[in-house]
Amino acid sequence: MDIVEIRRRVKAVRKQLRGDVDGLIVTGVENVRYLTGFRGEDSWALVLPRAVVLVTDSRYTEQARGECLGCGIVERKGGLAREVAKLIEKNRGKVLGVEDSCSVAVLAALRKGLKGITLKPVSRIVENVRVIKTEEEIRLIKKAGRIAFDAMDWMLGQLKPGMTERQAAALYDYKLSEFGAKAAFATIVCFGANGSRNHHQPGGRKLRKNDTILMDFGANRQGYVSDMTRCYAVGKLTPFFEKVYRTVALAQKAAVAKVRAGVKVCDVDAAARAVIAEAGLPEFGHGTGHGLGLEVHEAPTVSGVDKEGVLRAGQVITIEPGIYLPGKLGVRLEDDVLVKKDGNRILSRDKRYDVEIDRIPLL
Amino acid sequence: MDIVEIRRRVKAVRKQLRGDVDGLIVTGVENVRYLTGFRGEDSWALVLPRAVVLVTDSRYTEQARGECLGCGIVERKGGLAREVAKLIEKNRGKVLGVEDSCSVAVLAALRKGLKGITLKPVSRIVENVRVIKTEEEIRLIKKAGRIAFDAMDWMLGQLKPGMTERQAAALYDYKLSEFGAKAAFATIVCFGANGSRNHHQPGGRKLRKNDTILMDFGANRQGYVSDMTRCYAVGKLTPFFEKVYRTVALAQKAAVAKVRAGVKVCDVDAAARAVIAEAGLPEFGHGTGHGLGLEVHEAPTVSGVDKEGVLRAGQVITIEPGIYLPGKLGVRLEDDVLVKKDGNRILSRDKRYDVEIDRIPLL
Repeated sequence: MDIVEIRRRVKAVRKQLRGDVDGLIVTGVENVRYLTGFRGEDSWALVLPRAVVLVTDSRYTEQARGECLGCGIVERKGGLAREVAKLIEKNRGKVLGVEDSCSVAVLAALRKGLKGITLKPVSRIVENVRVIKTEEEIRLIKKAGRIAFDAMDWMLGQLKPGMTERQAAALYDYKLSEFGAKAAFATIVCFGANGSRNHHQPGGRKLRKNDTILMDFGANRQGYVSDMTRCYAVGKLTPFFEKVYRTVALAQKAAVAKVRAGVKVCDVDAAARAVIAEAGLPEFGHGTGHGLGLEVHEAPTVSGVDKEGVLRAGQVITIEPGIYLPGKLGVRLEDDVLVKKDGNRILSRDKRYDVEIDRIPLL
Repeated sequence: MDIVEIRRRVKAVRKQLRGDVDGLIVTGVENVRYLTGFRGEDSWALVLPRAVVLVTDSRYTEQARGECLGCGIVERKGGLAREVAKLIEKNRGKVLGVEDSCSVAVLAALRKGLKGITLKPVSRIVENVRVIKTEEEIRLIKKAGRIAFDAMDWMLGQLKPGMTERQAAALYDYKLSEFGAKAAFATIVCFGANGSRNHHQPGGRKLRKNDTILMDFGANRQGYVSDMTRCYAVGKLTPFFEKVYRTVALAQKAAVAKVRAGVKVCDVDAAARAVIAEAGLPEFGHGTGHGLGLEVHEAPTVSGVDKEGVLRAGQVITIEPGIYLPGKLGVRLEDDVLVKKDGNRILSRDKRYDVEIDRIPLL
């Protein structure tokens, strides 16, 4: 990231403010990072009428000097809200926005003792800018995908019958840490029928000689995340697993084929569901996808609820249809897809672990 | 946990409300758990005038039925705030408190379309009850300490010169996961001079034949956490490390000796600092300790800033003085201590890893 890109981001945020407010107090950790380059925590960014300021503390001052571009750095001594209130005092007569993702207590602390300045909660200002990714961000998301596959590859090599879901997830996380990354979210490993439970926490269930695996995994590398799901048969491939897997792969393919700028998110969602309905298999209860970047769940949501939302070039979304048969099995396939003007590009493809309709993965 | 204990907690919360509000909307995940027994996420508890209700979604309904005691369970279809607004509509004329740790956006969503009910942000109601631990909670914190030592024990057995801080931390986290627990916070492993950096993230620094290690580690087991710090010399023990280590051990001992109900937190803090000052070594910049339980940082704060705060029987606090010499070394020793009427009990002691003034640990 360079100063030109930082300036573009700040300018885009100011444009989003549309004169409703004269500046913005940025409290969300990913938003602070996005606008300043700072990778620490417990710090806020102030987008003031004439400057951008990072307010941090002594633990981070040295780090901030190395990471931040195009902003002033203030080392606070007391509480964040009180110090920021002092810093903005000179903006009398102005209206400043505060991210409404901050807590009620934080807003109250900011307002306390502040005279002549109006603080107005505002929604999703920086998030709206973040939704369109730059080339550099796309490269980072792709790299977060690659490293996740590397860790999974290693983990699958360690896998043996008798090993628990919990051990498999722990091995994946371990390898990621060794690579200098970390899990983007609590890694999901489901053996057998547990795959039908969308919110399964890896537990003591042991891998059998003949079994199935669902793994929902991601990496956070330098702040940017990936989020994929893969499924395997172990030992013996049953015709039923094969049918379900093939149907999900077709559903994913159909949804991905729809992805391009200008297409409605509900049409992408519908494309996946149509394939599953046609096969006579049950519809999945979750959306078909979500945006990702600095966070695992960002705008847009790819679901049938939103009848108006349209994909835009530069968005990165997951496409993750599934089929869940409680007590039997669950299959979900998930990849990270870049929306382009004239189509799309799958960022999370890896020769070793591509989803192919005609090759059901057997371990 | 049993229904009697849950009722005691709800009753204590109602007492804290002191008639200022008629009920409380509990949005904090640890607070929801504390009042209902529910261990999932994305769910709120309503402490209404005549009932307690957990509002969850279909992913969690089955789990909630198994975990919750003494409360109704409502499965929501739409957004949390909107569903809760519907549920509380029948409380017209009442004033309900909302935890001010919730976001500004959440409070706005709750208020939207709500008529005849006043919502009032309130501070630290459930937290004030949580600060005094039950026997069962003390047992869980102690167990979270034991499992952390077990994982560290295993990790130290794997440690070899050439291994990085990052690998050491990843091995510790891995072993915890295998035990069915997880790290209570991002595990800190510092080799050599990195020990002086309070906010150090484990990196690529390799362990040398003659070196020092600082490890700040904890476990989250069944929701309750532990938080300890240990330091080691590797290979050769230098007289300077020995002096610093012994001074920190004496400072910790002096602070622990002060811990009992009725003592001011600033006096506990001062006891640790006096030992270090007397040895002519530099004062540490952080507080001497903090409460812990369902969260790693809870009330009370044990520091010199708070001149009035007094310890109460049943609180569990860390005692963690340190000496930091930038570019040279850092030593911190931390244990979890139960405040008792007539003294204290160290919960995180483990024969293998006790802090002893006369035995400097050498690996």
